[in-house]
Amino acid sequence: MSKPSVPQGTRDFSPAEVRRRQYIFNTIRTFFEVYGFQPLETPAMENLVTLTGKYGEEGDRLIFKILNNGLHELKDAKRELVKSEWEKILQKPFSSPVLTERALRYDLTIPFARYVVMHQNEISFPFRRYQMQPVWRADRPQKGRYREFWQCDADVVGSTSLINEAELLCIYQAVFNTLQVPVTIKINSRKMLAALAELCGMADKMTDITIALDKLDKIGWGGVANELRERGIPDAGIAHVEQIINVTGDNAQKLETYSSIMRQSPIGLEGIKELQDTLKYYNCLKNADWTGSIAVDISLARGLNYYTGVIVEVVCSSEKVVMGSIGGGGRYDDLTGLFGLKGISGVGISFGIDRIYDVMEELAVWPEQLAAGAKIIVLNFGGENELYALEILRQLRDGDIAAEVYPEAVKFDKQMKYANKRNMSYVIIAGDEEREKRLVSLKNFSTGNQQMVTVKEAIATIKAGLNTV
Amino acid sequence: MSKPSVPQGTRDFSPAEVRRRQYIFNTIRTFFEVYGFQPLETPAMENLVTLTGKYGEEGDRLIFKILNNGLHELKDAKRELVKSEWEKILQKPFSSPVLTERALRYDLTIPFARYVVMHQNEISFPFRRYQMQPVWRADRPQKGRYREFWQCDADVVGSTSLINEAELLCIYQAVFNTLQVPVTIKINSRKMLAALAELCGMADKMTDITIALDKLDKIGWGGVANELRERGIPDAGIAHVEQIINVTGDNAQKLETYSSIMRQSPIGLEGIKELQDTLKYYNCLKNADWTGSIAVDISLARGLNYYTGVIVEVVCSSEKVVMGSIGGGGRYDDLTGLFGLKGISGVGISFGIDRIYDVMEELAVWPEQLAAGAKIIVLNFGGENELYALEILRQLRDGDIAAEVYPEAVKFDKQMKYANKRNMSYVIIAGDEEREKRLVSLKNFSTGNQQMVTVKEAIATIKAGLNTV
Repeated sequence: MSKPSVPQGTRDFSPAEVRRRQYIFNTIRTFFEVYGFQPLETPAMENLVTLTGKYGEEGDRLIFKILNNGLHELKDAKRELVKSEWEKILQKPFSSPVLTERALRYDLTIPFARYVVMHQNEISFPFRRYQMQPVWRADRPQKGRYREFWQCDADVVGSTSLINEAELLCIYQAVFNTLQVPVTIKINSRKMLAALAELCGMADKMTDITIALDKLDKIGWGGVANELRERGIPDAGIAHVEQIINVTGDNAQKLETYSSIMRQSPIGLEGIKELQDTLKYYNCLKNADWTGSIAVDISLARGLNYYTGVIVEVVCSSEKVVMGSIGGGGRYDDLTGLFGLKGISGVGISFGIDRIYDVMEELAVWPEQLAAGAKIIVLNFGGENELYALEILRQLRDGDIAAEVYPEAVKFDKQMKYANKRNMSYVIIAGDEEREKRLVSLKNFSTGNQQMVTVKEAIATIKAGLNTV
Repeated sequence: MSKPSVPQGTRDFSPAEVRRRQYIFNTIRTFFEVYGFQPLETPAMENLVTLTGKYGEEGDRLIFKILNNGLHELKDAKRELVKSEWEKILQKPFSSPVLTERALRYDLTIPFARYVVMHQNEISFPFRRYQMQPVWRADRPQKGRYREFWQCDADVVGSTSLINEAELLCIYQAVFNTLQVPVTIKINSRKMLAALAELCGMADKMTDITIALDKLDKIGWGGVANELRERGIPDAGIAHVEQIINVTGDNAQKLETYSSIMRQSPIGLEGIKELQDTLKYYNCLKNADWTGSIAVDISLARGLNYYTGVIVEVVCSSEKVVMGSIGGGGRYDDLTGLFGLKGISGVGISFGIDRIYDVMEELAVWPEQLAAGAKIIVLNFGGENELYALEILRQLRDGDIAAEVYPEAVKFDKQMKYANKRNMSYVIIAGDEEREKRLVSLKNFSTGNQQMVTVKEAIATIKAGLNTV
């Protein structure tokens, strides 16, 4: 028998890991709810036709397809057809509906767009939904990149108001402040990027310019300038780009300077106005205690083609952490158009749970009480004492204390070893003496203190000693 | 463009449905934690070799297999091999590792066994784990049967103590009492079923006898007797079975009578003793307020072959509901043996979330406050008033009140219509007058009452009016 294992790029989550992940999920969920977003869940499987063509050619290849069941029941004619098409199937397995008609969810955005189109008559717009589910991609696994990973998305569709952008910025702030992860939220506008391309005299080269600009952090201005030259941007254009990225000051000052540089570009001025309004709304909504900063960053591009307005990206600002973006999003003007419903604008953000987990691990900012589940164990001395132990256990649980009993009356040392490995806070010992007196011996595992008390007193001591259960 | 849809047998869950499902999940999770169980999560995908051969031939066919990615990159020799094996692949697609090597989780038990074997050196036994995740089966979809559905399992491995069985009974009671679902928990022992087969002189026919007995509810004793005859059980054996199933009385009396009938069967007496001890432990642990009953039922068989000791099944006892079992489980002696780790006994239970949801729907026992998310909306009158609305919103959220703003300054009627459709409890109206006075008009949506108050007063009124947020 070969050693059992999990597929490459997938993970088991141990109890400690599940608890920490739940803490992140619950924090995000809490703020999604406080901000009026409603939960949605979609199936792990989608019809292949719903997904293909939505993520580019590379995306199509990375979608996990599900083999049709019932292949063994195919009728002869169909079976011959499949055999004759075998070459084609091997080339492009997902083009053969005989072999596969379903696939695993690749992101949460396309299923959301599908849902909105299917339920457009029941939904009250503007519709604020959140969704926290795994997605699957056949990427080559590497450190920090998995084939099964979790997304937490919040989107508003059916409203063009920039209040939505401002609220989503607030959610990022509220969540990362609660999680104690220091962040910078970069913000930019696709419209300013379009204006930049216009300024270069290459309105059709926005993608080339943004791809080059996106590397500013990594390769510096010299590298970016070279790349722009290779991509055919004339020197005058490159000079414009340099002028723009060298603009300094706070957000308001930067936007003011951009306005004068882009004064002849209507789309550029529109983008600048959108950022100014977003920040104005944000300043009304923000909580004075939040520490994360919002930074206008003209080099922010975001990969996804469907963004059309404001775009954002969150990075951890601690020097201790080297990690790409831990969240991002933006406005898209016509996502549901893919499924036949035109004219619904939307804006959304996403949290990268797996990376946030890694960052919190590095910063060591987990709340202490996440470490274990039940922190009380009642030892088991068999016979009458065993039944007495169960009665104690019942009273603890009735008092809302999570507790367990050692299920077998094995040697004391073995039970204590288990209690130690499980990191118990208190051990309850009830042998003949305790049972006869209807008392328990309560041992504090960290101090070693032990006292014989009533069950009621034990419950009071435990409750005072545990922050939470 | 064809109308978008979800694959047969899968479902989207709307916000209201997600909230209700979360309520069930959270209730179960709370008690799993109180009883000392620890959370575990495993990947949606498992290696096919982990799953095949574990669920019988029918099970193998119902496993959803995932098409390998990279088929288009196959080298020529391999490609020829696949072509020549095409017939075989069509017969049994899952026997071709070129086509598929991974599959979707079919239940939570086998992945748990795999996990225990992989992590046996880190785990402190007895190991109590719970797991709440979806599973996928290519069953023909029908009412109440889905291709994607959720299981919530709790298992203890590494302990043979019947205290574990008793604790699992308590968890069923605690959960269903909290959910307000009246239940009967049937309990039986595989060992008593083995003894019954012995009594019939057909020790090797235990499966035949239990399959027939399992139908007692549906086809009555006459039908069962006929089926036993068809399956080759002699008349004397059938008389024994009749004698057993006609035993009446409470649990203790029934077990007493079985003891005398099975007095010459060591395995039968062992099974009876196990049930007696389980009930003894249960009586020490149980909460006096629980209403569900435990019923020894010799006709209970449970399908899964791996059970070896006590088995249980939960049915809703309300006459208003017609539904099969909503939970079940039992003891298995050697599950991890499938992956090479022998001698680890375990016992577990499972909750059928989708059926529990349907039962609660029929009984109409959902708590009222589950209906909506944010119940407060601040209307938007544009300009200065819009910014004032955002300030109000911030104060509400700082006061832990979930609230939203209408993001655009559209007509009053349109905003009120949205508030109505979303079932808001309160609407906050702040126009010129309110803004100038630094007040708000708070409208109670159910009574229609409206009063002009400070934001602080509004928060106090809202908190008093909402049970929970």
